[in-house]
Amino acid sequence: MAIKRVGFVGTGIMGAPMARNLIRAGFSVTVWNRTASKAAPLVEEGAVSAASPAAVAAASEVTFSCVSDSPDVEAVALGPGGILEGAEPGSVYIDCSTISPEVARRVAQAASSRGVAMLDAPVSGGDVGARNGTLAVMVGGDPAVFERCRTVLEAIGETIVYVGPSGSGQVVKLCNQVAGALNLMAMAEAITLSRRAGVDPAKMIEVVSKGAAGSWMLANLGPRAVAGDFAPGFMVDLMQKDLRLVLETAAQTDTPLPGAALVNQVLRMLQAQNRGGDGTQAIVDAVARLAGS
Amino acid sequence: MAIKRVGFVGTGIMGAPMARNLIRAGFSVTVWNRTASKAAPLVEEGAVSAASPAAVAAASEVTFSCVSDSPDVEAVALGPGGILEGAEPGSVYIDCSTISPEVARRVAQAASSRGVAMLDAPVSGGDVGARNGTLAVMVGGDPAVFERCRTVLEAIGETIVYVGPSGSGQVVKLCNQVAGALNLMAMAEAITLSRRAGVDPAKMIEVVSKGAAGSWMLANLGPRAVAGDFAPGFMVDLMQKDLRLVLETAAQTDTPLPGAALVNQVLRMLQAQNRGGDGTQAIVDAVARLAGS
Amino acid sequence: MAIKRVGFVGTGIMGAPMARNLIRAGFSVTVWNRTASKAAPLVEEGAVSAASPAAVAAASEVTFSCVSDSPDVEAVALGPGGILEGAEPGSVYIDCSTISPEVARRVAQAASSRGVAMLDAPVSGGDVGARNGTLAVMVGGDPAVFERCRTVLEAIGETIVYVGPSGSGQVVKLCNQVAGALNLMAMAEAITLSRRAGVDPAKMIEVVSKGAAGSWMLANLGPRAVAGDFAPGFMVDLMQKDLRLVLETAAQTDTPLPGAALVNQVLRMLQAQNRGGDGTQAIVDAVARLAGS
Amino acid sequence: MAIKRVGFVGTGIMGAPMARNLIRAGFSVTVWNRTASKAAPLVEEGAVSAASPAAVAAASEVTFSCVSDSPDVEAVALGPGGILEGAEPGSVYIDCSTISPEVARRVAQAASSRGVAMLDAPVSGGDVGARNGTLAVMVGGDPAVFERCRTVLEAIGETIVYVGPSGSGQVVKLCNQVAGALNLMAMAEAITLSRRAGVDPAKMIEVVSKGAAGSWMLANLGPRAVAGDFAPGFMVDLMQKDLRLVLETAAQTDTPLPGAALVNQVLRMLQAQNRGGDGTQAIVDAVARLAGS
Repeated sequence: MAIKRVGFVGTGIMGAPMARNLIRAGFSVTVWNRTASKAAPLVEEGAVSAASPAAVAAASEVTFSCVSDSPDVEAVALGPGGILEGAEPGSVYIDCSTISPEVARRVAQAASSRGVAMLDAPVSGGDVGARNGTLAVMVGGDPAVFERCRTVLEAIGETIVYVGPSGSGQVVKLCNQVAGALNLMAMAEAITLSRRAGVDPAKMIEVVSKGAAGSWMLANLGPRAVAGDFAPGFMVDLMQKDLRLVLETAAQTDTPLPGAALVNQVLRMLQAQNRGGDGTQAIVDAVARLAGS
Repeated sequence: MAIKRVGFVGTGIMGAPMARNLIRAGFSVTVWNRTASKAAPLVEEGAVSAASPAAVAAASEVTFSCVSDSPDVEAVALGPGGILEGAEPGSVYIDCSTISPEVARRVAQAASSRGVAMLDAPVSGGDVGARNGTLAVMVGGDPAVFERCRTVLEAIGETIVYVGPSGSGQVVKLCNQVAGALNLMAMAEAITLSRRAGVDPAKMIEVVSKGAAGSWMLANLGPRAVAGDFAPGFMVDLMQKDLRLVLETAAQTDTPLPGAALVNQVLRMLQAQNRGGDGTQAIVDAVARLAGS
Repeated sequence: MAIKRVGFVGTGIMGAPMARNLIRAGFSVTVWNRTASKAAPLVEEGAVSAASPAAVAAASEVTFSCVSDSPDVEAVALGPGGILEGAEPGSVYIDCSTISPEVARRVAQAASSRGVAMLDAPVSGGDVGARNGTLAVMVGGDPAVFERCRTVLEAIGETIVYVGPSGSGQVVKLCNQVAGALNLMAMAEAITLSRRAGVDPAKMIEVVSKGAAGSWMLANLGPRAVAGDFAPGFMVDLMQKDLRLVLETAAQTDTPLPGAALVNQVLRMLQAQNRGGDGTQAIVDAVARLAGS
Repeated sequence: MAIKRVGFVGTGIMGAPMARNLIRAGFSVTVWNRTASKAAPLVEEGAVSAASPAAVAAASEVTFSCVSDSPDVEAVALGPGGILEGAEPGSVYIDCSTISPEVARRVAQAASSRGVAMLDAPVSGGDVGARNGTLAVMVGGDPAVFERCRTVLEAIGETIVYVGPSGSGQVVKLCNQVAGALNLMAMAEAITLSRRAGVDPAKMIEVVSKGAAGSWMLANLGPRAVAGDFAPGFMVDLMQKDLRLVLETAAQTDTPLPGAALVNQVLRMLQAQNRGGDGTQAIVDAVARLAGS
């Protein structure tokens, strides 16, 4: 029997457009946000506002959360008035936040002990992808539960990939951030060398991004960085939060990641200069600063 | 008046298929190679073999060279029996090797003093791109000379971009290698973290390569690395030769490139293990080795 | 009036010999350890065993703690039955553990609200220094309290330095670990290059350690590493715990430390190879492994 | 029979005081310098000026050279009018420059083919050590020749260590620079963390430099860096020249040195800011700049 009642906890920059796409896909959507005013536009579009995450879950067959960090997930899922307090046995909890795989597994076990199945389903694609419903969603958990929720997930994303048991979605998201961080560094060093050696970096990007050294970062953020446009996109502070999760997980699994550790230090330069709110393409300025520029 | 007579000096893994594409495009091609036997198949396809680079140049309106490193270019261009010894004033010399921008400028000046225009036109795309005529070509030199040679360049490549005065093509090629090297590191660390944290790296690549952390390296070399296929492609030894040029140029322009310097050290691990002849995707093994695997 | 009654909470590898030196210096010493048997030899030498940290503090004018990490200090100081529960107003609490400066300041505030002065006084010099009473002690807190406790501190260490307000002792200890970690890396790379380039590293150490590139690490741990003696000394796992505190404090103060971050990754290689229990001189093996040895 | 006639080629900042100490030790000293005026004060003190390195060597049982880099040694030793042109069979050539071990071995072979024994004998200790005769001298070559020259070497240095066959002295000197560079980085990161975390770095140095994290660099250059005194000592440009030799030798021996490569990049920051003439303690400013200071 098809899923109809869907809940959404955390309707911020990412969560609000995701909830909106669920409404538009025809689901009955119940929402909650810590700052209630942020949920108001969704209510205008047909969502029902609930008094707590527990109340959202009580009204829903599938309850999403999309919050900032591991402690936030622990609060909205496990805390008083939290999702697991209200969720019916047999319902599903899908967390789209980017958090520690370890915490994801711990919350999944707590859910399981209450008869609730949990999927970790972090997303990639930014607020633009969230609005356009083109997110990549990397899903960990029980494959049967994943299949049951596929239609719901397809309302929020385009590339929906099941990657393994509980926690695996978060692992893949962290791998995504490792690759993204080093691709950013690639962009920054290529632009800096181009400038220092006297070649217009826009020309360089034009040709390099089409070949074997091309990347999404170079093609999309490179021109913005060269033009001095540092508006986010994805903020330095958030990338560093994700790299913290990466390095914690690397520590727990005894995995040396010297490249990611280096980029983490370079991003810290930007935070030291109060540029944590800039887009990640600002890394070009950090590398340029190494060269005295 | 359209260019008809083209010379090619250095018909190795890259040069031979490039010369072949010139023949197929209808140019009269004269060739020379240090090991003459390597030029023989081209003669069968219609090329004329000459006794020296000077003789190639004497027979050609445009003479290409494609050799290994800066000293090789200096030898075939400036040495006894070299291209500049035979080249007519008004002819063009195009070097497709990847060499130091400084040497490229020096050779261009020597050419200029003999009335020969030089373009530095390193290529990207590997032997596959050379065979298919789909190379990216980044061209430095006089823009009018570039325009004059455009039809010739279009016989060997697909993306032909003029990037600035003499030496600029080499600078862009080095930027390409900086970006490529760091994208390789991105691939290696993402695969390693995926494995250590218990997720099938093939699944990870499937989803990550489609989003904002995607790159040509991850999408194309990632699956080969995961499958244990380390056949080159582009050899570790050649990437390290290029990174040496990168770091020399960075030194000459006072440009710190900590990321490229780190990847250079990681590639050196492979050389220390006698894997310099493997494809660059072998970097995954170097990073895995850090993790004791 | 001179201090006579001293308490010691945490009589492990470091704490036991420190408490012993306090006994030998003539103080009346009360002790507590989580595993009570570890305190038994001290009782034989004249210490009194107490039932809880609170009981130790109730009996003492100055109470020391020496435990593993920030949460342990929070437990023995702030937890039920903890030091602050028993300490008389006007008494002093000195923590010799290496912990987060932030936690040190928080505990000091909690102490202050109960009328107890706290000094953070981490030590350097290892178990040998603890036994010989030759520790370096870096002290943060109220300078008047420091002066009052000087005679007590002189019983456990040789170099006793007041470095600033609460938390400053921990900051200096973390700086000590930054310097120590990079000096270890210096030792490892010098030994590796010496071997790879065909020179007996023992000869190299003999001359290098006497000049401007000399360090305690090279002179003391270098010969042990060269001889293949990896017995701790100071364990890799503990160094990495301290580097975690370093990198956390660096993050909180927006301080890029690329060198310390790199050494952290190299030590992680050892943990990945189950060598966390080796002495830190094992870093030589990690760097050698980079070179395929 | 004791050596009496000693030659010195290259009487610059290091060479002049070394030659002076040979004069003061009672040797008959013949000198040559590219800029002849720099040798004049030595002539006033009793040296004889010769017209060429060959003339110096012709007059000497043992001829020293002390110049800047590998090509300089090749010029004064192997070039026209060079040392080997004038040196008598049976005489000794001692090079105190810091150069590539490979070049040292090549020059030694050229010397050997003319019946001249060569020692590579780079020094450590700076101009102060050269003036005071307290240099460390690391000597490679034939051990019997070393023993024959010991009294001469003892006139210029304090720690005279034979380290192995030809080239070994240079290898040890490069190891010395690896260790020194990383100890500098240790100093810089410790000072930066101390400042950012609010502790007077002078206090930090006072205590850290006495313990297991102590080094010559921290104890001697740390206080100068903290005081803003960046006068050389040993210039950034020279340290980077030596790190270039280090990284070349590392490449030739397939030795990854990620730490030395990182410090090389940090020193490049200083060169990018036109601070190559500062003393190496200026690295503290480069690391501080990472932190936005």
